[in-house]
Amino acid sequence: MKRGGRAGIIGGGVIGGGWAARFLLHGWDVAVYDPAPEAARMVGEVLENARRALPSLADCDMPVEGRLTFSASLAEAVVGAAWIQESVPERLALKHRVMAEIQTHADPDAVIGSSTSGFKPSELQAGAPNPGRVLVAHPFNPVYLIPLVELVPGERCDADAITVATDVVTGVGMKPLLVRKEIDAHIADRFLEAVWREALWLVRDGIATTEEIDDAIRFGFGLRWAQMGLFETYRVAGGEAGMAHFIAQFGPCLKWPWTRLTDVPELTDELVDTISAQSDAQSGAYSIRELERIRDDNLVGILRALKARDWGAGALLRAHDRRLMADIPAAEPFGETSPQPLEMLTLTVLPAWIDYNGHMTEHRYLQVFGETSDALLRRIGVDADYVASGRSYYTVETHIMHVDEVAEGQGLRTSTQVLAVDDKRLHVFHRMRAAKDDRLIATAEQMLLHVDATAGRACTAQPAVLARLRTLAEAHGSLAWPESAGRRVGQRD
Amino acid sequence: MKRGGRAGIIGGGVIGGGWAARFLLHGWDVAVYDPAPEAARMVGEVLENARRALPSLADCDMPVEGRLTFSASLAEAVVGAAWIQESVPERLALKHRVMAEIQTHADPDAVIGSSTSGFKPSELQAGAPNPGRVLVAHPFNPVYLIPLVELVPGERCDADAITVATDVVTGVGMKPLLVRKEIDAHIADRFLEAVWREALWLVRDGIATTEEIDDAIRFGFGLRWAQMGLFETYRVAGGEAGMAHFIAQFGPCLKWPWTRLTDVPELTDELVDTISAQSDAQSGAYSIRELERIRDDNLVGILRALKARDWGAGALLRAHDRRLMADIPAAEPFGETSPQPLEMLTLTVLPAWIDYNGHMTEHRYLQVFGETSDALLRRIGVDADYVASGRSYYTVETHIMHVDEVAEGQGLRTSTQVLAVDDKRLHVFHRMRAAKDDRLIATAEQMLLHVDATAGRACTAQPAVLARLRTLAEAHGSLAWPESAGRRVGQRD
Repeated sequence: MKRGGRAGIIGGGVIGGGWAARFLLHGWDVAVYDPAPEAARMVGEVLENARRALPSLADCDMPVEGRLTFSASLAEAVVGAAWIQESVPERLALKHRVMAEIQTHADPDAVIGSSTSGFKPSELQAGAPNPGRVLVAHPFNPVYLIPLVELVPGERCDADAITVATDVVTGVGMKPLLVRKEIDAHIADRFLEAVWREALWLVRDGIATTEEIDDAIRFGFGLRWAQMGLFETYRVAGGEAGMAHFIAQFGPCLKWPWTRLTDVPELTDELVDTISAQSDAQSGAYSIRELERIRDDNLVGILRALKARDWGAGALLRAHDRRLMADIPAAEPFGETSPQPLEMLTLTVLPAWIDYNGHMTEHRYLQVFGETSDALLRRIGVDADYVASGRSYYTVETHIMHVDEVAEGQGLRTSTQVLAVDDKRLHVFHRMRAAKDDRLIATAEQMLLHVDATAGRACTAQPAVLARLRTLAEAHGSLAWPESAGRRVGQRD
Repeated sequence: MKRGGRAGIIGGGVIGGGWAARFLLHGWDVAVYDPAPEAARMVGEVLENARRALPSLADCDMPVEGRLTFSASLAEAVVGAAWIQESVPERLALKHRVMAEIQTHADPDAVIGSSTSGFKPSELQAGAPNPGRVLVAHPFNPVYLIPLVELVPGERCDADAITVATDVVTGVGMKPLLVRKEIDAHIADRFLEAVWREALWLVRDGIATTEEIDDAIRFGFGLRWAQMGLFETYRVAGGEAGMAHFIAQFGPCLKWPWTRLTDVPELTDELVDTISAQSDAQSGAYSIRELERIRDDNLVGILRALKARDWGAGALLRAHDRRLMADIPAAEPFGETSPQPLEMLTLTVLPAWIDYNGHMTEHRYLQVFGETSDALLRRIGVDADYVASGRSYYTVETHIMHVDEVAEGQGLRTSTQVLAVDDKRLHVFHRMRAAKDDRLIATAEQMLLHVDATAGRACTAQPAVLARLRTLAEAHGSLAWPESAGRRVGQRD
């Protein structure tokens, strides 16, 4: 299925709007039909969110956005559409009426996906004139970001309709999960329903509030499940003894009152063998040690993404940093006159900083030097309050020289030599060294300009800041001029 | 509780080892007691993983690592310890024996946390000589990365022991969740147990394999739960109509066979009101629109973290990029003689690229220029195969000039002018412009050196690569020398 086809979206709520956005942003023309007066506004709001977020996931050009129209009738929305997505309310009689009307007007080959959370495809097909073109295509909110879509064809769906469905959802960036046997609520919603029921008990019995329940998820197993599911997580936790051992160990819990939901299957040898064999097929290509490190790297990445956004477990990490920093002995009172470059940061090369050559990626050097400049600014009094007052130093120019390589996990130190200072300009020279053996890794010469951010122009720095800088510049005046400062790129002498 | 105390770890498996690692890496001295012959090796392996991962979460100095000892007896491990963590197997009689022995030798004030997954604190306290110092402190694997710890004091725990426990786990970077009423399996494991039971049914009934179940989680709701839990997610999904409406809509599902686990509470008005009020208290500070955007930014961050690691939903995004790029019309056959800089990348400023001033962060400029150089290299034949052969161009020097600012969501284009080429050196000049109005944003002059990566020294590039570069250099020879090339930092003329 080439992108740039035409999709008919029947039902324009949060789910229908999410589908519309996925198709539009992948170059499809989309016609939406929803008789609700609010539909156009709601689809527009979802689309606005999607335009903001979905392209951030791609590292290449996205297709040119398709054309969005709102149809006056269902017939108008489905005529000529290769893919029709039904997202009307969860009432079977209504879905039957809609299926019949769709197939009265659509191309005979058009494939119809239903967003139903719970109905089986056989139940939907029972109301369709042409059941072979109907299947469940169940997405997850927000549809434009969450990749999963459960495709449930049931026994009556045409084989080629399943192929079309797989190609179409893959083409708009989704992960099709083919559900081989139809069942109420498919797969994922069965877990959600079990957790929902347990959560209702906990709230009803006064054990936990909604917030405590959410925290129990997002600070704990929710982090694990963003990257490995239930079985792979347990495989790793079970360690070298393997999956069968893990099940044997936790088997007794099935008999204990660990949930209010108590219907449990018997742990026969056959079931244990089935699970072990499936887990081997799924994860056996990796050793437990490899899986542990994959899991840990994923968790570090997820936690750091949340830290960058100051949310959930990431907000906790920020608070923890503040506590760690509060425990660090206070810096020497300012007024250094030592003719030595200032010792600035100590840090470790993170896994995410490594490029395909196995070395630290180019721009991470500038990240470290930029953080070194930030640390210098805080030290001379350009702190959060100063910046909040509308003044700051901006970097206008940087010259980096790469001297040696560093690998993941290596410790680094940076130092700063102040080369020159005037009312508006600050000229500095940073060095990055290996913590272990003091080897020079890279240098950066930077020019910073003091600006009035509101007015968007250079201005004189505050007297207290200038006084500190001048003290530093004077102390550093007796240092030798760094060999690689004042040089142009490619200079040979 | 100041860091740098002394912790006794009783039981040195994956959980005990994880606790030991958290304490050690936060400057505590740790004594481990475990009679198993493998304990020292297992704790060592967990600690090795933790040293690799935990410091990556901090953006400041971590404390100096504490001292790890393995004790010959339980008594030796607990004497003088301010915090004692029990992580022995889940057998109540064993836990009672261990508690009694701990309290025979420990300081009377020492607080004892139990890692039990399922026992209530009252059950543990029943076997303790001094029950006021005992509580459940239930962590999640890997303990050194997952922040959640459920603190369950029960009715007999001293108030000051709860305070100590909260301070201690907060001090080692964890999120204490105080469970106010004791219950079997506390809170989080009740959800895990419900999902586990449902998963066992699905495997037993042949509906899904372990891998399909894991995919249903990690490509779907697992991504959501890393940042918002069940109730906040549903609050956002329910949209403007609010939580009570959401529950009313999905209430009927409780009567449907959406899980094999069927004991359900009655949805009384009182329960619906309780949930709505708790949800308002939890999330009411944000509008639905704000929560949507917070959620979306978090999901983008999590998905990109997984993309950087080529795992799960992130591996899917990489595959999708490859499909999108395959759809882009092939580049002009090489041999350009146009005296124009090469048009290189088009891209959008991502949310994660923005600094506290609201502009693109300094090092992201170098990221964009670095990717521009990478694109040039691919264009002249330095592709993945070439790099795999052990040869590549490394950047040795960069001079960036910042000309104007860009904000989130703005489109950028880059272009490249080849300034000079010899057998080993490649001298280029990149420009970054705003896509909308062609405004110059920044420039970068770079010197790249062709290297034999194995030998770690410069070497001559392959003839085909050199031929392409010379064609370019010749075509660009007629272009004016860029105004900001060949300049040193701070040059005024």
